[in-house]
Amino acid sequence: MSLSVPLIHPLDQSAIQAARERQNQLTKPAGSLGRLEELSIQLAGITGKNISTIKDKVIIVMAGDHGVVAEGVSAYPQEVTPQMVLNFLAGGAAINVLARQVGARVVVVDMGVANDIDAGRGGVTPPLLIQCRVASGTMNLAQGPAMTREQAEESVQSGIDIALAEISKGADILGTGDMGIGNTTPSAAIACALMNASPEKIAGRGTGVDDDGLQRKVSVIEKSLQVNMPNPKDGLDVLSKVGGFEIGGLAGVMIGAASKRVPVMVDGFISTAAALIAVTIAPQCKDYLIFAHRSKENGHALMLEWLGVKPLLDLDLRLGEGTGAALGMSLAESACKILAEMATFGEAGVSQIVE
Amino acid sequence: MSLSVPLIHPLDQSAIQAARERQNQLTKPAGSLGRLEELSIQLAGITGKNISTIKDKVIIVMAGDHGVVAEGVSAYPQEVTPQMVLNFLAGGAAINVLARQVGARVVVVDMGVANDIDAGRGGVTPPLLIQCRVASGTMNLAQGPAMTREQAEESVQSGIDIALAEISKGADILGTGDMGIGNTTPSAAIACALMNASPEKIAGRGTGVDDDGLQRKVSVIEKSLQVNMPNPKDGLDVLSKVGGFEIGGLAGVMIGAASKRVPVMVDGFISTAAALIAVTIAPQCKDYLIFAHRSKENGHALMLEWLGVKPLLDLDLRLGEGTGAALGMSLAESACKILAEMATFGEAGVSQIVE
Repeated sequence: MSLSVPLIHPLDQSAIQAARERQNQLTKPAGSLGRLEELSIQLAGITGKNISTIKDKVIIVMAGDHGVVAEGVSAYPQEVTPQMVLNFLAGGAAINVLARQVGARVVVVDMGVANDIDAGRGGVTPPLLIQCRVASGTMNLAQGPAMTREQAEESVQSGIDIALAEISKGADILGTGDMGIGNTTPSAAIACALMNASPEKIAGRGTGVDDDGLQRKVSVIEKSLQVNMPNPKDGLDVLSKVGGFEIGGLAGVMIGAASKRVPVMVDGFISTAAALIAVTIAPQCKDYLIFAHRSKENGHALMLEWLGVKPLLDLDLRLGEGTGAALGMSLAESACKILAEMATFGEAGVSQIVE
Repeated sequence: MSLSVPLIHPLDQSAIQAARERQNQLTKPAGSLGRLEELSIQLAGITGKNISTIKDKVIIVMAGDHGVVAEGVSAYPQEVTPQMVLNFLAGGAAINVLARQVGARVVVVDMGVANDIDAGRGGVTPPLLIQCRVASGTMNLAQGPAMTREQAEESVQSGIDIALAEISKGADILGTGDMGIGNTTPSAAIACALMNASPEKIAGRGTGVDDDGLQRKVSVIEKSLQVNMPNPKDGLDVLSKVGGFEIGGLAGVMIGAASKRVPVMVDGFISTAAALIAVTIAPQCKDYLIFAHRSKENGHALMLEWLGVKPLLDLDLRLGEGTGAALGMSLAESACKILAEMATFGEAGVSQIVE
């Protein structure tokens, strides 16, 4: 499968202008709803509608495994990836709880889980799981490329296709989520490669490795960069050398959504690594991304800074799965509802500022 | 009316312990939901239930006017207070929009609006407005006490009574909101008096005064402190000298809710001034308060620091009305649902951390 990157248009400036003007007519001091006002204006630019609507919310949780777990970079065994996929499908994970609260559908995608996902039912794939398995986990990025360039292209293309399919079913906002034991290591390696940052500054404790584990992780990332020499100008090269299938898929979701003028609520550390890949492949998609939260994972703040974006929330989350994205979607909905439902000064008969 | 302060119990340590243990059994790395986990544990201590439920949410918006507007401290005319009360009752204000989104009821209270609230319908008080008018606005605090000590007691008692009434109707969380042209001035004066802080550090632009207006505001606050000499050990003295009726009412709401083990989501600058009064009158109520957000209004961060609390959100809001509290309630609900609805490792058959 070769990658076909869809065209992404610039934000709609006339919708931005109209949204800004309406904000200033609503019964509140201009600017007093801060980030919610900015968000409603960004959403107008994204959708091209003066007043955007967020109703059909979809969180796409992509799962994949990582050969690099052989280096002892995770506190959890690899079998947890398919176990958590089943937990998502059964509705018992954190993302299911938060998605239900905000009224979002959860779409679970197997981008390349190493072990069978069959709930012990003899090889039967659970329904409701989208199968886009590029391979049974990546190769060990400390020893060589995590995947071939063709596999990198396939993972991004799958993400684009899934985004377009959900949008054609009516989704008006997509959220990104991830599951993959070991995936903070490729995510950190991607950030180091693209930002030319040192692994000490980016690598964190992931699901909870100790000091030795963290040091091991830093060494593994250093080695992966030396061995693979990823080209920071080439997002697909970085993805193939030190990335992961779910990370490529999420980058594709971002590009696909942007091409259809649909906003993407980007979750935490892994999703932001995917965003770094996405904006390297298709820089225009950045304006369509909303960053939900600042993760507690070490390098995330630097990655957001490098992108020049400010996240909505800062709640010390470090779970992934799209949990931060679900909370962020609720704020995006608040922003749209403010613009759509508040009375203007004229409508409510409220006096304006004394000049 | 004299004030009767109800007894407030300490947090329930066994519920706190049980909630913490359950968080560590849920299918996620321990601590990975950060502030949401902490919040679920605080809520267990507040309610005394291992797993709290937040279903019946009520935002109490209290309105009052301020004699100090005679000093030119606000960008809006005083007639906006009753106009906005009507906007609340009609459902067109920001708080109505956000309350609808999070499923909260809005209760509007006239604590002492200067002008008639009658929608031009010839003196008819709108239904659904709770009448607790202490007086038609406070006196000018730059010239003398804003109110008598009896009026201060009455305002706090009204807040307690309203909280108890809403709780008896089933409310399991209360949010605080305010409306009152000029009320950032008494709020800043309260903070200066209780924290022994300089007005330059606390006073902000409120609804949007210019540099001259801000300087005027600082001078007015300085004068109010010199003229009135509020006693920082006596919350009612501070409230009566430099406070406001809606601020006293909100302090009462916090004390009343705490006495019934019901959490209070505290909004921004004005609500935090009320919290300063509440914890001065009844220090035990602090554990029952959750601070929704850090306002853009100048001194708010210092007030939160003085209280030793960390707000949930930081979205540059500076509107009041309870808008930040509504958003915070949604996070409190998330915290409770995580604890109630997530599967444990055992239930989901997910492997735990490799020790």
